[in-house]
Amino acid sequence: MKEITVLAPATVANVVCGFDCLGFALENPCDQMTLRLIAEKTVKIKHLDDFNLPLEPEKNIAGVALLAILDEIEENIGFEIEIAKRIKPGSGIGSSSASAVGAVVAANKLLDERFSLLQLAEFAMKGEFVASQGRHADNVAPCLFGGFTLVRSVEPLDIVKLDFPPLFATVIHPQIEVKTSQARKILPTEISLKSAIQAWSNVGALVAALSKGDYELLARSLEDFIVEPVRKKLIPHFDELKSESLKSGALGGGISGSGPSVFMLSETLETAQTIEKSMREIYSNTEIDFNVYVSEINAEGVKVSKT
Amino acid sequence: MKEITVLAPATVANVVCGFDCLGFALENPCDQMTLRLIAEKTVKIKHLDDFNLPLEPEKNIAGVALLAILDEIEENIGFEIEIAKRIKPGSGIGSSSASAVGAVVAANKLLDERFSLLQLAEFAMKGEFVASQGRHADNVAPCLFGGFTLVRSVEPLDIVKLDFPPLFATVIHPQIEVKTSQARKILPTEISLKSAIQAWSNVGALVAALSKGDYELLARSLEDFIVEPVRKKLIPHFDELKSESLKSGALGGGISGSGPSVFMLSETLETAQTIEKSMREIYSNTEIDFNVYVSEINAEGVKVSKT
Repeated sequence: MKEITVLAPATVANVVCGFDCLGFALENPCDQMTLRLIAEKTVKIKHLDDFNLPLEPEKNIAGVALLAILDEIEENIGFEIEIAKRIKPGSGIGSSSASAVGAVVAANKLLDERFSLLQLAEFAMKGEFVASQGRHADNVAPCLFGGFTLVRSVEPLDIVKLDFPPLFATVIHPQIEVKTSQARKILPTEISLKSAIQAWSNVGALVAALSKGDYELLARSLEDFIVEPVRKKLIPHFDELKSESLKSGALGGGISGSGPSVFMLSETLETAQTIEKSMREIYSNTEIDFNVYVSEINAEGVKVSKT
Repeated sequence: MKEITVLAPATVANVVCGFDCLGFALENPCDQMTLRLIAEKTVKIKHLDDFNLPLEPEKNIAGVALLAILDEIEENIGFEIEIAKRIKPGSGIGSSSASAVGAVVAANKLLDERFSLLQLAEFAMKGEFVASQGRHADNVAPCLFGGFTLVRSVEPLDIVKLDFPPLFATVIHPQIEVKTSQARKILPTEISLKSAIQAWSNVGALVAALSKGDYELLARSLEDFIVEPVRKKLIPHFDELKSESLKSGALGGGISGSGPSVFMLSETLETAQTIEKSMREIYSNTEIDFNVYVSEINAEGVKVSKT
């Protein structure tokens, strides 16, 4: 029996000024999943975690993504998948994308890489749709392509893999619920042309900074006057997390996805670890449970752990 | 007597999605100016063209930029400048910036390069202010730095020189008047968050495409749904110029600055020349006088022609 085990990483979307287009992949946490080819055109799901996710393939994110693949192939085969989720659903670091992307990348390996990355992104987005009821590639793109990605357009899907220098992320996940729908609802529908210009100037500078490895420019362009001011209210101690991280040497950062996770970028592992300490200190003084992750940017995306 | 002659190039600002931040320099047309140090703290101006520009330094763009330099130096010296403008004022290809930048670059050479590029940009922007009554670096930046530039912020001034692959521009200047103030007035003050996201995704992709030399991505990201739809009405036959240029192989293009010039980018000189022909054809059927320029992107900006 052919089988493969992959690690699908957490991802950060909505990178500061790059709302709805810029994302990157983390080295950890990762979901682990093992996929086997079976001789029946169906998807069988087993979860090795405590998140009580649905096991019917039509309701499971990985399941829907795999069904989308089965729809595209002629052979009378299917998949059996065991998922050990370690990225908590609702954390704002791409838990559902990891499920979907991990599943389709593993399936594609078992099918001798017959699909392109862009095709895999389309399959994964069908899985993502179960979670978000929307067509988004913000987390799918970095999970699948690795590194930093820019989604230029969703319809048609156009994903750009960006060049980037060594970078480390510190991510705190406060264990509170921020519903994506609520986080969407508080966004302005109209913004001033002036602030839009400021935003796209920063996005352009951010992409240039990543490509040149210009950390100072990167720091200057990590600013967002549109989304962060309205969404930060949903995240306890956001301002403190940010100001203390900057004091500790962070280049910048903000809300991961639609929250509640908050991320900061650093030039060195040492700085990222100093930021971890200061984030832990801030949240240790609260009643809120939390996790903190320190991770280099994951240039690869999904990794094969065993074949 | 120390003297220097420089060529200050025309520039294209508001590069499609990069409204108010992205610009590039052309090889031609260029203003030519000769600067001499004199033993009196003043600026003397002579124009070798027919544009009837004011000769009082306080009212002349190059004059104001040079006075800003004199304000910063201790020595009892001044400048005598002869300007042969070849970039028609009001053409939308950075005529006033060329005057200001050419003057300050020439002055800095005579002063043994004592000022940084960013300082020179500040001096030139004081000159620009005479023309636009606003603080802008859209044309100053590419004229001074050369190549493609991104103005991340005007206050404080932050200019990013972008990497870019070989590119050719075709620019048509219809000899009609489009007032910058009028072109500003018809802009929306508010835009939808949705179209802003589309714009900044394109700006990010455009910068990535320039840095990677990815011409296909460059073509896909050269789209603007915010400014072009309202401003193109000021430019006769804009839609025809654009659609014929794209048919001739242009990567994309749009309004240069606030018009009336229209530019198109191409991967090869041959394509740029084919576009020139089709632009000439379209405007030959009208009563409007016009000039067309074909030019490689000017990587250097202002050039010294004689010392």
